[in-house]
Amino acid sequence: MSDKMKPSYDDIGFAKVDCHRVKRRGFPEVIFGKGKTPRQIIEIAKKIVSHHGILLITRTDREVYLKLKKIYPKINFSADGRIIYYRKTAPRAKKGTVLIVTAGTADWPVAEEARITLEVMGNPVEVLCDVGVAGIHRVLDKKHILEKASVLIVIAGMEGALASVVSGLVARPVIAVPTSIGYGASFGGIAPLLTMMNSCSPGVAVMNIDNGFGAAYFASMINV
Amino acid sequence: MSDKMKPSYDDIGFAKVDCHRVKRRGFPEVIFGKGKTPRQIIEIAKKIVSHHGILLITRTDREVYLKLKKIYPKINFSADGRIIYYRKTAPRAKKGTVLIVTAGTADWPVAEEARITLEVMGNPVEVLCDVGVAGIHRVLDKKHILEKASVLIVIAGMEGALASVVSGLVARPVIAVPTSIGYGASFGGIAPLLTMMNSCSPGVAVMNIDNGFGAAYFASMINV
Amino acid sequence: MSDKMKPSYDDIGFAKVDCHRVKRRGFPEVIFGKGKTPRQIIEIAKKIVSHHGILLITRTDREVYLKLKKIYPKINFSADGRIIYYRKTAPRAKKGTVLIVTAGTADWPVAEEARITLEVMGNPVEVLCDVGVAGIHRVLDKKHILEKASVLIVIAGMEGALASVVSGLVARPVIAVPTSIGYGASFGGIAPLLTMMNSCSPGVAVMNIDNGFGAAYFASMINV
Amino acid sequence: MSDKMKPSYDDIGFAKVDCHRVKRRGFPEVIFGKGKTPRQIIEIAKKIVSHHGILLITRTDREVYLKLKKIYPKINFSADGRIIYYRKTAPRAKKGTVLIVTAGTADWPVAEEARITLEVMGNPVEVLCDVGVAGIHRVLDKKHILEKASVLIVIAGMEGALASVVSGLVARPVIAVPTSIGYGASFGGIAPLLTMMNSCSPGVAVMNIDNGFGAAYFASMINV
Amino acid sequence: MSDKMKPSYDDIGFAKVDCHRVKRRGFPEVIFGKGKTPRQIIEIAKKIVSHHGILLITRTDREVYLKLKKIYPKINFSADGRIIYYRKTAPRAKKGTVLIVTAGTADWPVAEEARITLEVMGNPVEVLCDVGVAGIHRVLDKKHILEKASVLIVIAGMEGALASVVSGLVARPVIAVPTSIGYGASFGGIAPLLTMMNSCSPGVAVMNIDNGFGAAYFASMINV
Amino acid sequence: MSDKMKPSYDDIGFAKVDCHRVKRRGFPEVIFGKGKTPRQIIEIAKKIVSHHGILLITRTDREVYLKLKKIYPKINFSADGRIIYYRKTAPRAKKGTVLIVTAGTADWPVAEEARITLEVMGNPVEVLCDVGVAGIHRVLDKKHILEKASVLIVIAGMEGALASVVSGLVARPVIAVPTSIGYGASFGGIAPLLTMMNSCSPGVAVMNIDNGFGAAYFASMINV
Amino acid sequence: MSDKMKPSYDDIGFAKVDCHRVKRRGFPEVIFGKGKTPRQIIEIAKKIVSHHGILLITRTDREVYLKLKKIYPKINFSADGRIIYYRKTAPRAKKGTVLIVTAGTADWPVAEEARITLEVMGNPVEVLCDVGVAGIHRVLDKKHILEKASVLIVIAGMEGALASVVSGLVARPVIAVPTSIGYGASFGGIAPLLTMMNSCSPGVAVMNIDNGFGAAYFASMINV
Amino acid sequence: MSDKMKPSYDDIGFAKVDCHRVKRRGFPEVIFGKGKTPRQIIEIAKKIVSHHGILLITRTDREVYLKLKKIYPKINFSADGRIIYYRKTAPRAKKGTVLIVTAGTADWPVAEEARITLEVMGNPVEVLCDVGVAGIHRVLDKKHILEKASVLIVIAGMEGALASVVSGLVARPVIAVPTSIGYGASFGGIAPLLTMMNSCSPGVAVMNIDNGFGAAYFASMINV
Repeated sequence: MSDKMKPSYDDIGFAKVDCHRVKRRGFPEVIFGKGKTPRQIIEIAKKIVSHHGILLITRTDREVYLKLKKIYPKINFSADGRIIYYRKTAPRAKKGTVLIVTAGTADWPVAEEARITLEVMGNPVEVLCDVGVAGIHRVLDKKHILEKASVLIVIAGMEGALASVVSGLVARPVIAVPTSIGYGASFGGIAPLLTMMNSCSPGVAVMNIDNGFGAAYFASMINV
Repeated sequence: MSDKMKPSYDDIGFAKVDCHRVKRRGFPEVIFGKGKTPRQIIEIAKKIVSHHGILLITRTDREVYLKLKKIYPKINFSADGRIIYYRKTAPRAKKGTVLIVTAGTADWPVAEEARITLEVMGNPVEVLCDVGVAGIHRVLDKKHILEKASVLIVIAGMEGALASVVSGLVARPVIAVPTSIGYGASFGGIAPLLTMMNSCSPGVAVMNIDNGFGAAYFASMINV
Repeated sequence: MSDKMKPSYDDIGFAKVDCHRVKRRGFPEVIFGKGKTPRQIIEIAKKIVSHHGILLITRTDREVYLKLKKIYPKINFSADGRIIYYRKTAPRAKKGTVLIVTAGTADWPVAEEARITLEVMGNPVEVLCDVGVAGIHRVLDKKHILEKASVLIVIAGMEGALASVVSGLVARPVIAVPTSIGYGASFGGIAPLLTMMNSCSPGVAVMNIDNGFGAAYFASMINV
Repeated sequence: MSDKMKPSYDDIGFAKVDCHRVKRRGFPEVIFGKGKTPRQIIEIAKKIVSHHGILLITRTDREVYLKLKKIYPKINFSADGRIIYYRKTAPRAKKGTVLIVTAGTADWPVAEEARITLEVMGNPVEVLCDVGVAGIHRVLDKKHILEKASVLIVIAGMEGALASVVSGLVARPVIAVPTSIGYGASFGGIAPLLTMMNSCSPGVAVMNIDNGFGAAYFASMINV
Repeated sequence: MSDKMKPSYDDIGFAKVDCHRVKRRGFPEVIFGKGKTPRQIIEIAKKIVSHHGILLITRTDREVYLKLKKIYPKINFSADGRIIYYRKTAPRAKKGTVLIVTAGTADWPVAEEARITLEVMGNPVEVLCDVGVAGIHRVLDKKHILEKASVLIVIAGMEGALASVVSGLVARPVIAVPTSIGYGASFGGIAPLLTMMNSCSPGVAVMNIDNGFGAAYFASMINV
Repeated sequence: MSDKMKPSYDDIGFAKVDCHRVKRRGFPEVIFGKGKTPRQIIEIAKKIVSHHGILLITRTDREVYLKLKKIYPKINFSADGRIIYYRKTAPRAKKGTVLIVTAGTADWPVAEEARITLEVMGNPVEVLCDVGVAGIHRVLDKKHILEKASVLIVIAGMEGALASVVSGLVARPVIAVPTSIGYGASFGGIAPLLTMMNSCSPGVAVMNIDNGFGAAYFASMINV
Repeated sequence: MSDKMKPSYDDIGFAKVDCHRVKRRGFPEVIFGKGKTPRQIIEIAKKIVSHHGILLITRTDREVYLKLKKIYPKINFSADGRIIYYRKTAPRAKKGTVLIVTAGTADWPVAEEARITLEVMGNPVEVLCDVGVAGIHRVLDKKHILEKASVLIVIAGMEGALASVVSGLVARPVIAVPTSIGYGASFGGIAPLLTMMNSCSPGVAVMNIDNGFGAAYFASMINV
Repeated sequence: MSDKMKPSYDDIGFAKVDCHRVKRRGFPEVIFGKGKTPRQIIEIAKKIVSHHGILLITRTDREVYLKLKKIYPKINFSADGRIIYYRKTAPRAKKGTVLIVTAGTADWPVAEEARITLEVMGNPVEVLCDVGVAGIHRVLDKKHILEKASVLIVIAGMEGALASVVSGLVARPVIAVPTSIGYGASFGGIAPLLTMMNSCSPGVAVMNIDNGFGAAYFASMINV
């Protein structure tokens, strides 16, 4: 391995912060907040900011935000999206628009996590809320918006049928995110996950349940 | 599409309220409360009431009810059924009776959600509680009531055997609702769901676990 | 129990044929062929025909058909639908039409089982094949047919999204039948079953996987 | 451990035949045929017969039977029950009757396995076939037979509701056997297994799917 | 149906209390407390006591107990077993002993529910705690106690192996109760449930997870 | 809807062939062969070829191929990939390369289905076989090939770990395809499906088990 | 059984404390705290300490610790590892090192439980945190540490791919511990459990979800 | 990476044969035969033999064996174990004995796969067949053999209880292999898999269902 390609990381005991991530993958390490103590998150965050000037923490809360705000006063937090985000410099703006489509109002938190991730990564974003298949005319009526998008993220709980329907209307890739919205036989999101996995419309790829961040990250990779 | 049939909706950002629902489906949009903020529910509710004069909110709570009561003083709430309901004018009364049958006392909240939905939609309702198969004579003794019903909703947790038994006694359709009552290998309602799915008696169709509202809505469509 | 209501059955050892079924339920016992020997099926069939003059055998095959044809030369068989059927006299024709809608061409055997059952029970039937959501315009284009139906049976494998979409377009009940068409994470029909169970559109009730007969029987009960 | 109680077995390499089983448990080892070669079964069988004069082989076939018949000309085989059985001397006849009840005709093979096991163990047996809950009057009509039984074995596939219903009618224990009869969401017998596990009627204990032998063995232990 | 056999029940709206249960089944209705309000439980309890003078309430709590104590000062409650029990007159004492065997100390609450149920039903009870297979000598050492029992209830969580081991040592029936003790891949009791279902030792019948009451009820039916 | 946008299809009874698919989605309808009769496939194929001059049939066999070859002598078939393909004119060649990476030799059929689909859609393709994580140096050694790809398809059975590893090395999107290669607790592909769903490396989207076609179609949408 | 080998235990009613465990297995009984009352734990602990002078209590809490500290002032507690530990005398130090490797920072509590268990059992331990496959260079960079270990414990949630990767790099056994870290389709640790079960790299054995103790105990048995 | 450590492999298109495996892991690559064509297996086999002089092919058949026999006349095949094996030179003999214990006769094929793997890797092996817990004295009687073993492999289907029992008797590690022997609720080996995962006896690690090879490989790593 040549020196230039040599991977490196900061070893802080409980974590090995990947300093080489931007060079290798185009974006720094993102912190998954769940299961980490506030102190651990802050130590990792400081390493990432010092290397890259960009910070994204998912599945986190206001307590972590307030502690980080003392260090980085311009840091932001979305309570709905459970996400902390910060950039020292604005990202290079991409040309294509990523369209987030939700089936219901209750899918909003997942959409919010996706929206912020997309914007931090430099993607123009549009959001189309509550156009589930119970009233199919709502999504058909927005066909011109669907057709203009470069990439589409479809977020749906319950039966998750919206992903197939949207995919069938457009020539661009659909990233489907099942959500845990529902009850009984939705089994915390298994029902829409299977729906999206078995889409009869080619052009649908699937993310983990409630993974708005992952969908946005993947969409940003596609969007140019 | 002719103008008369043109679908329409009110776009309030986080929701697209379907104004065309009554024309298309015979009943306005019903609000699924779970996962929505009180403010979102109230905004959607106001749109629905202004268009149709009828309001039904399922999986909701007293907090939403008290806020809506300030706007619509005659609005109603059932704590057992977790349902808010309101009609400006009485519905057209249907002729047939919908009979709700529960296997046990603990199935009551699901029955209550069904009962209120049915009444808001104009259906005469009768309720037969706690006639599970452990004492089969209780339901056999009510055979005359079963036979008079136009549609039957059978609500049962644990092993959910009542749906097949009731269906085998009548010439009318049985809508089966599995409930999450039980423990251990009932797996939150999977046991009665599978029981009802595999009924050896033709004439049984199945709803999601604890979906009293859905059963009532479907029953009302059948009832004439 | 009064004499008139006294239930009765023919006891032939391996089976107790329910002679009272027409009086109690409006239609004679239907034979589920799977797991029974040809001899058993024929003995049961003879009892049913002698009492009611109507015969329906599901999940059966040509061998049973050819043996029965020697006894009832006018008996019919559908290889696609795996169903044997026979009526001495034509049924009373119902007024409403039952519409069978399939998502894909491969769902046909289930539709065929439903179609024959419906016709034997006196229902006018229409069939709309291959209108799955990958090309949503195919089903929207047939909206006038959907709207005329008295009851709708929607048959779909893979993700099973069609049931919700169709239900959202009509004011009549939709009976949803998941099929085992698909592969991988469709798990032999679990994916569309869960989809249909969790429909965001009220007015959908669900049958067992591949249960075309059950859907037809239930539809016939509703249809007047 | 005293000498008298010392356990012993015949070690024949691929098997350790338990010679002490009758003393310890009241009945010799029973051979589970599935997964064993004919040669292995025969070697084990010879050891058991030489010690106890009784032989029971479940989940076996005609090939094994014909080979054993050359050694024990009076050996018996039931193709339906997939069981080989042989006793040098008749068993001590018990007083109580074990009643086998099946929901449908297709449950017969499981009932047959149970029936033969019971008889080999000295139990008077009665069988009541095809009294499933789709026509509940068939089982109610036999209430006098149910009430006379010392132990009841209820065998049912599909939704398996019969076990709860029968248990609710009698003061004696019900051993419930789910069968793999059914399709789709019966999942090879999981549906009736869960039904029986969650019985709302106390007095029901459950066996593995299609385990007619186990039910009979357990019933014989109870029957006096 | 003759007059003497005519079933009857007290209809108190939310419940139909089965007054005929003792005559039909030998023991009055037992109240499953979970999912019922204290008021409902008390009303049902009063009906049962007035008819039979015996009361058993499972899955209940101290609040219900204290309310009932005002009406029946001699009523008893076990916090461990979550069970309320009361008898006006002592039961007829049975001859055989029921032995409760637990695998671990943490299985105690299920054993306690079983123990009280057994005593209320007149069975002499012995309890053998914490003899799980990790130290097999503990149960082998008690072989004389195992062999004296008329019926055995084996209660085990984690892998639930104890039921097979105990059954292999005795000539009497083993009623196996899986418990939810464990973590991770025990899946709330599914692991021991499957273990017990698949016992290689004939003579084991299985109850629902944590169903100490059901095991006791079934054991009492067997015990003479 | 304006005339220009009017969707259309050819109705041939058992199928509604979507003629508008190229305009709407950029590629004609692809035939899923499983569950369709040869005659049905051929009729649908003829419609698609007449409209678009391109044909792709997945999950099919040699019998269908030989019948179609009589009509279209230049048609191709891959037995490994179970896929029939045909283009009247060569596709517009894309610039980016799609790299297919397989974990093991046995994953080849899925890779072959993907490779052919990609080529028919005009994508330069490279394939890297048998670089699973048991010998991680094999994939690390090919890092320069991974880094040159525009889109990556990672195909893996057993534990499916390769997708995360590859994604962690590149800045481009990874489309992960779990395969049914494995045994026991791979549960026909559920194990790698869950692995890929839960990837700790952002930039992985998941397809259905064995869905090589879907991965290729999605990759082609991304590739420019 | 000779006297020397005679198993023995202390019977304290709710528990049978295995005094013979050290002789038979080389280490005393370890108390699983979950589901036991503090009083029960303390009584068992006193018996174990009096016999062996070593105490290990897993899945416990500070309350139990503080009570035991009054009896054994030198006792230790790790809140992260939820484990209490105590040795009167230092263990015999083993030669080989056990290496604990975690995929992420959030897997720490499971690693801590393993670390303490290993040290109490006399094993030199090294820990390598947060070297998951999203940045594979972090683990490759530590290859010299991996290669020096006598036994490796790999702890990972989410997709759990690290176990296969590490195993593929070394000649020593890998004990894989799936953790419940993750969300959605990780299903509380099922995803990494299946991943580890299906490892394409031989040399991986699997523990229950979050079972750090079990992995350490097993590793200590191997380590010499 | 130093030159000496540089990994290498033979690239033969459909496979990348790992030539460095012996140096890195102590044993050459083992071929998993399932899903590979005979031609592919033979090509890979030739590469492995030429590098290492040792060959092991699991999940294979006689056809492959006969083809390889023409190339390597001294190659061996076990039809029971579905395994082909070959060594040019005898392995270095290890000191410790690996003991294979099976619960039933039908578990033999898995034991055979393990036995051959162990011997090819130089381990003295002993086998103890058919000592399942239904007759616990059979395994207790062999306690001296259990205690002499360096490592134990316990192979069991049905409820898989034997692993815990054996582990509780010895001071050495137990590698547990669940088998697919059983029916109904054994779900192809899930039942014993969960049993073994949840063992109450520390010192048990688990392999995939029917993975005799994996258990042997792991055991050989431990055995010294």
